[in-house]
Amino acid sequence: MKAVVYRGARTLDIEERPEAEPGHGELGIAVAYTGICGTDLHIYHGDMDARVGTGAVIGHEMSGRVAAIGPGVTGWSVGQPVTVMPTRACGECPACVRGHSHICHRMQFLGIDSPGAMQSRWNVPADLVIALPEDLPLEQAALIEPTAVAVHDVRRADVGADDHVVVVGGGPVGVLIAAVAQGRGARVLLVEPDAFRREVAVELGIETLDPAAADVPATVEERTGGAGADIAFEVSGSAAGVVTAVDVLTTRGRLVMVAIHPQLRPVNLHRFFWRELELFGARLYQRDDMVEAVQLIATGAVPAQRLISRVGPVGTVADAFTALESGGSVMKVLIDWQEQAR
Amino acid sequence: MKAVVYRGARTLDIEERPEAEPGHGELGIAVAYTGICGTDLHIYHGDMDARVGTGAVIGHEMSGRVAAIGPGVTGWSVGQPVTVMPTRACGECPACVRGHSHICHRMQFLGIDSPGAMQSRWNVPADLVIALPEDLPLEQAALIEPTAVAVHDVRRADVGADDHVVVVGGGPVGVLIAAVAQGRGARVLLVEPDAFRREVAVELGIETLDPAAADVPATVEERTGGAGADIAFEVSGSAAGVVTAVDVLTTRGRLVMVAIHPQLRPVNLHRFFWRELELFGARLYQRDDMVEAVQLIATGAVPAQRLISRVGPVGTVADAFTALESGGSVMKVLIDWQEQAR
Repeated sequence: MKAVVYRGARTLDIEERPEAEPGHGELGIAVAYTGICGTDLHIYHGDMDARVGTGAVIGHEMSGRVAAIGPGVTGWSVGQPVTVMPTRACGECPACVRGHSHICHRMQFLGIDSPGAMQSRWNVPADLVIALPEDLPLEQAALIEPTAVAVHDVRRADVGADDHVVVVGGGPVGVLIAAVAQGRGARVLLVEPDAFRREVAVELGIETLDPAAADVPATVEERTGGAGADIAFEVSGSAAGVVTAVDVLTTRGRLVMVAIHPQLRPVNLHRFFWRELELFGARLYQRDDMVEAVQLIATGAVPAQRLISRVGPVGTVADAFTALESGGSVMKVLIDWQEQAR
Repeated sequence: MKAVVYRGARTLDIEERPEAEPGHGELGIAVAYTGICGTDLHIYHGDMDARVGTGAVIGHEMSGRVAAIGPGVTGWSVGQPVTVMPTRACGECPACVRGHSHICHRMQFLGIDSPGAMQSRWNVPADLVIALPEDLPLEQAALIEPTAVAVHDVRRADVGADDHVVVVGGGPVGVLIAAVAQGRGARVLLVEPDAFRREVAVELGIETLDPAAADVPATVEERTGGAGADIAFEVSGSAAGVVTAVDVLTTRGRLVMVAIHPQLRPVNLHRFFWRELELFGARLYQRDDMVEAVQLIATGAVPAQRLISRVGPVGTVADAFTALESGGSVMKVLIDWQEQAR
């Protein structure tokens, strides 16, 4: 079988490896498609070497079919379509004890802390596998994991019907948040400087705004009769995005921090005080979020297909990382692993 | 009657003025005691000239007795002890419409936007007057308004029994928050660099920590078995206080922003993301908070007397402002207006 191995900053090797049988409690999965996430890009840039090490098989956005059933595993059949929840909690740390095991302090993340999905055959603990409807295309199913992120974020914000929602940042997660929030009946405005990304969002029926061409807070104020937005999602990861997300909010408005901000950011805490604003960090997802994401994609509520910019064979993986890091006219790029099994 | 009139930065005149009868719907109150709040200091420094103007009678922390009953007002009797809720909402702005009238966008604040409590006779709308128990000393009753701030902040944080609470900043409001939270059964640690303020807190039975002498996050981690605090209150108004308040929190911990931060502050948003922290702005109070504050002081749950550093006649008002702005060995300073009525 083939595997994509991280060998150090900007170096991914495609290696031929022997196929291993699943161990006790594991399922062997024939990987169909893998996506590339922001975290994969961080690894690729060498930013996470201390955690990942070199020689790691990366990747955690995927879909596939059960190919082998390990000892002690029941309830699965070979050929069944599946995806994987790539997080394992310790069950003992302060986060787990308080019921927040999805952000366990000693999280084992598949594709970061243990071998990931970028291999044609992947053995994973059976309790992390999620069954998929037979008629859900496996290409789309590779977007379940990022969709679960969006579901978690929207849940964290408690988005309701008719809420005015501003999503700052129109990459895949931003667009997915906009789609999920809109599915709940919210009135969504997506703020994104890149024309291609705005175009994708518009194709999905999402209203967009170019922050370089418009005064975002003034536009939101106008849309909301002077009140401001009920909810903002910061998905841009930029200092300017933080400013925008705070400035658009109404009294007691809620800001959900989705993006990773590696540096401290200047924040208008006086506005938090004055308007009694609220800020909620949101990270990863719970199993329920994965299950809801399956439903949203399967029913077409989240049009995953339209977020897939292109699909290529394993040999194109380096090109895919290069395309994503340059940003611009690309949303999701998938690797098709199925030829490896043919 | 006498009144303290703001005449521009650092200039307070004590003027003799004619006593006016209360208008329709008003009560005339013989002011007993007034306190001085951080906002009064901002006015005194000239920071709020655009809003306050010069020639304003300032002050809004007070106690007194009904002295005259205006036309159309029923249910009150002369001599009844009272305090005043100094805020009037418009009822029409986005904040009011959403049920947050206590932070009305067009708030009329008595002592800022209209004549305040620093006069021996004060006419105020009867619906803002709150009756006090006859046996509650009027000195202590002058602390009801800042106690209502603390009640509101604690309510906003949803402090529960056994919660680990860190209060960053040990001025009057910080100490009151600590006392109110402790009254709810929380385990409170007050972080304050000033030795005098720590001493006052310790006298009230509050555990304190000097941030100059201890590693605050490490201490909190140790107290909480490695988890971190459930709730932090930022009451210091300093950039360092913000850092501390964020760093002490456990997964999904809640930070309440009480202090005014006139500048943007660098905030570790990555920690908000990583631990799914929450931030809540908290400003002023609702009428329920005032009523609860009356009860807390009347029952001794909040030992208001011990927060009063000194009480002086009207002639000492300038000294009181000077003492407060220099900080240090002073908590609440009250002005006694009763001699004016004798």
